[in-house]
Amino acid sequence: MANSKFEYVKGFEQATDWVLLPSTYVVIRVDGKGFTKFSDAHGFEKPNDKRALDLMNECAKAVLREFPVLLGYGESDEFSFVLHKDATLFGRRASKIISTITSCFTGNYVRLWPQFLPDTPLQYTPVFDGRAVCYPSLKVLRDYLAWRQADTHINNQYNTCYWCLVKAGKSPAEAQATIKGTDTSFKNELLFSQFGINYAQLPEQFRKGSTVLKRPVRAVVKYREDGTPVERDRVQEVVLHCDIIGDAFWQEHQQLLGLAD
Amino acid sequence: MANSKFEYVKGFEQATDWVLLPSTYVVIRVDGKGFTKFSDAHGFEKPNDKRALDLMNECAKAVLREFPVLLGYGESDEFSFVLHKDATLFGRRASKIISTITSCFTGNYVRLWPQFLPDTPLQYTPVFDGRAVCYPSLKVLRDYLAWRQADTHINNQYNTCYWCLVKAGKSPAEAQATIKGTDTSFKNELLFSQFGINYAQLPEQFRKGSTVLKRPVRAVVKYREDGTPVERDRVQEVVLHCDIIGDAFWQEHQQLLGLAD
Amino acid sequence: MANSKFEYVKGFEQATDWVLLPSTYVVIRVDGKGFTKFSDAHGFEKPNDKRALDLMNECAKAVLREFPVLLGYGESDEFSFVLHKDATLFGRRASKIISTITSCFTGNYVRLWPQFLPDTPLQYTPVFDGRAVCYPSLKVLRDYLAWRQADTHINNQYNTCYWCLVKAGKSPAEAQATIKGTDTSFKNELLFSQFGINYAQLPEQFRKGSTVLKRPVRAVVKYREDGTPVERDRVQEVVLHCDIIGDAFWQEHQQLLGLAD
Amino acid sequence: MANSKFEYVKGFEQATDWVLLPSTYVVIRVDGKGFTKFSDAHGFEKPNDKRALDLMNECAKAVLREFPVLLGYGESDEFSFVLHKDATLFGRRASKIISTITSCFTGNYVRLWPQFLPDTPLQYTPVFDGRAVCYPSLKVLRDYLAWRQADTHINNQYNTCYWCLVKAGKSPAEAQATIKGTDTSFKNELLFSQFGINYAQLPEQFRKGSTVLKRPVRAVVKYREDGTPVERDRVQEVVLHCDIIGDAFWQEHQQLLGLAD
Repeated sequence: MANSKFEYVKGFEQATDWVLLPSTYVVIRVDGKGFTKFSDAHGFEKPNDKRALDLMNECAKAVLREFPVLLGYGESDEFSFVLHKDATLFGRRASKIISTITSCFTGNYVRLWPQFLPDTPLQYTPVFDGRAVCYPSLKVLRDYLAWRQADTHINNQYNTCYWCLVKAGKSPAEAQATIKGTDTSFKNELLFSQFGINYAQLPEQFRKGSTVLKRPVRAVVKYREDGTPVERDRVQEVVLHCDIIGDAFWQEHQQLLGLAD
Repeated sequence: MANSKFEYVKGFEQATDWVLLPSTYVVIRVDGKGFTKFSDAHGFEKPNDKRALDLMNECAKAVLREFPVLLGYGESDEFSFVLHKDATLFGRRASKIISTITSCFTGNYVRLWPQFLPDTPLQYTPVFDGRAVCYPSLKVLRDYLAWRQADTHINNQYNTCYWCLVKAGKSPAEAQATIKGTDTSFKNELLFSQFGINYAQLPEQFRKGSTVLKRPVRAVVKYREDGTPVERDRVQEVVLHCDIIGDAFWQEHQQLLGLAD
Repeated sequence: MANSKFEYVKGFEQATDWVLLPSTYVVIRVDGKGFTKFSDAHGFEKPNDKRALDLMNECAKAVLREFPVLLGYGESDEFSFVLHKDATLFGRRASKIISTITSCFTGNYVRLWPQFLPDTPLQYTPVFDGRAVCYPSLKVLRDYLAWRQADTHINNQYNTCYWCLVKAGKSPAEAQATIKGTDTSFKNELLFSQFGINYAQLPEQFRKGSTVLKRPVRAVVKYREDGTPVERDRVQEVVLHCDIIGDAFWQEHQQLLGLAD
Repeated sequence: MANSKFEYVKGFEQATDWVLLPSTYVVIRVDGKGFTKFSDAHGFEKPNDKRALDLMNECAKAVLREFPVLLGYGESDEFSFVLHKDATLFGRRASKIISTITSCFTGNYVRLWPQFLPDTPLQYTPVFDGRAVCYPSLKVLRDYLAWRQADTHINNQYNTCYWCLVKAGKSPAEAQATIKGTDTSFKNELLFSQFGINYAQLPEQFRKGSTVLKRPVRAVVKYREDGTPVERDRVQEVVLHCDIIGDAFWQEHQQLLGLAD
């Protein structure tokens, strides 16, 4: 059964084998598909389920181990991964990059689920989508990440108000009507006066999202016979819940990340 | 924290938001990344591990349940899924289609693993890549599927010879040297004369791969009080191991699949 | 001056070197940029300037001579050119195909202008834009051409009414108000009752646009000494003003054009 | 004749309506198609025909007048045009940008031909192709332009030697054999010792190519009754033949061009 007479079909692949522009930062954003339903089906705590967020972070760490990703930023059911502008992963072929990172994230989500939600059996298989966007300069990349982190804050403040009201007995429609179109200070006041919540003291993980990066650490790798530890330089994925909009984060990490125009 | 000043970054998405040409059959091919290593790490039987192939098929059935996919064809660590030429899934946006199908496949692979390989703990998370290719006519689509099925045959016959020789004591290099460049009849003769294997009688699953499609079935949905069954028409994913190169398969299923130029 | 250290910039071309899907009909549509102003500046007759339309047709014939184009269809300041679905022109690289056909059309427009409008000097250089669209079957291709020819009819009927009214003393706003939203029979009646024009008897070139194709002809190439002609088979570009929506045109030309699914 | 039932074909345009990444410099390179034959057919002087090069420059000036192009650089039968990274021309739609710039260049080439080669009638219509490439930073853009200018030098030096040898009676094959693989100093020595030519004193237009940009000038726009001139600030296209690889050109023009990372 000669295969050569069918091989011409391979030629059709070229038309959809898109290449990402060199010398641009590539952001791969992975996003839960239908996660409102998924979080209901698995009884996620509202407005934030720390177990589910920690699971997301662990999946992000796996992506950083597996791929040459500089940085991940996540909130809710989404995670953005940044490839260095000089990254040559898969010859910058878009489908390969998008699909493998989304696959790695999903596979880890399912695999690590029992560690993070041990009492909640997975009802069905979650699905994530992925996309790639190119950002030609560090400035635009930082604006992208600022866009996501500002979104985290806006959503979290809204959701905190909403779920306080609903848990206090309001209907969803009433809760929505109370907060719709209100500004930040109104929501802070509402949380404080009605529910005794100081928004600024809520966990930073909820307010700032999670930034995942690789950091050199001095780690104990074994012990000598006399009990003294043997240390080595290692690279470790760490999760931070800090501001990434201002300059401080970038001044601290820019060199480490090799991020410069 | 107003988000509007960062939102301009969304405009960069347009440049990589590719749309698949309407009125073409879309094939999404999902392929294991580094599965030689993965199959070694999990002690897959050679040349074919039926448990792993059945797991692949179950993942394919999940994809057919979740997405408007007409047909799947799989072999080894890859699976091709065919979308109807008139499919409007995600507005035919390529990244969405590629990433969600690959994600769904991967998530199910991890989730269903213990059912198919209960004695083999998953050592690490498998990763699949995905790509989309458009085929403008049923003829070219059939040639694509023929290309994959011919490939299944060629690989399987080669691998069957190779592993017989290795299991019989040859080194990998010797085994390779024995069969490299030989034709089909030589390999059949080798299998028969040296190992008593009639290639044509090996399981069709190994020789023909797996075709997954949805078929209307008459299914028992419950039993009446008197014990008689209540039947209803249902759609069920079925796995076939048959020739899909010749006309017979298509004459039987073309109407069902809505496949016509 | 070694060039090698700069040559890496060539690698950026890949990201914008799009390939048109094989086995699809490719339509290149060339369209005048700012031709309302251009036609005013050159005193084009309204609603149709036969000299300018004939010039467009001559440019289309030049495109058919220069490129493996099956068929051109033009109206007003636009022309669509059809490449065979198996065309391999420039490896189906989109930018090459779009730019050279648009360039050829424009260059001929300027070069042939004095032949068609001898008394009207070119005031400034006209510019055309071009785009490529893939159509996966003859049916969709025919629907594309039907779309353009129906557009020709609609525009021509509207413009004929509009200019009759304006030439009869109406203001542009009055003329527009009179015909806006009216149907075909109203417009035919208006032309007939007020201006004595039987729309169906206006020149077919205006009502049906121009279809350009190559046709084998028996041509006299020289004369023998005794005065008898020597004939040879030649391919010649011809311009037709006929219906291309119905089946008749296609039954007559389909084989000639090699157009079949 | 309702057009609505055919309008669905417009939906196919989306798949080939590519958008160029925002915030990147866009280079449109226009290149003569088959210009070896074209230059022979029109008796261009070898190795450089100043009339033809001046015509190219005049076409480039027309492109700068018509489009928001910062800078053009040309040599031989090609010209590169740079759009600002923040350019929004045609919504950065690739086909529109590529086709209109190529069309404008071609149309002017034909229109202005008689001014530059008055004694040489145009034998047939020249065709140019065009492509777009995105460069994400000023550094890469400068490397692109350096690549083209280094190419100008290499080609010009080679061609100058080649045509001296051929004009001195060598066959094309002999001329080629003499210079193939030789370095710059060999070629300079050859020109000097055999033909008395000091390469460095050849016209800069041939050695450095042509850079076209817009410059504010103080221009006399009319004269008062008493004969004194009235001056106004105007923008004028100018052609330079200078080094654009080193920093000097950029230090002088960077601000004017609005080119900064």
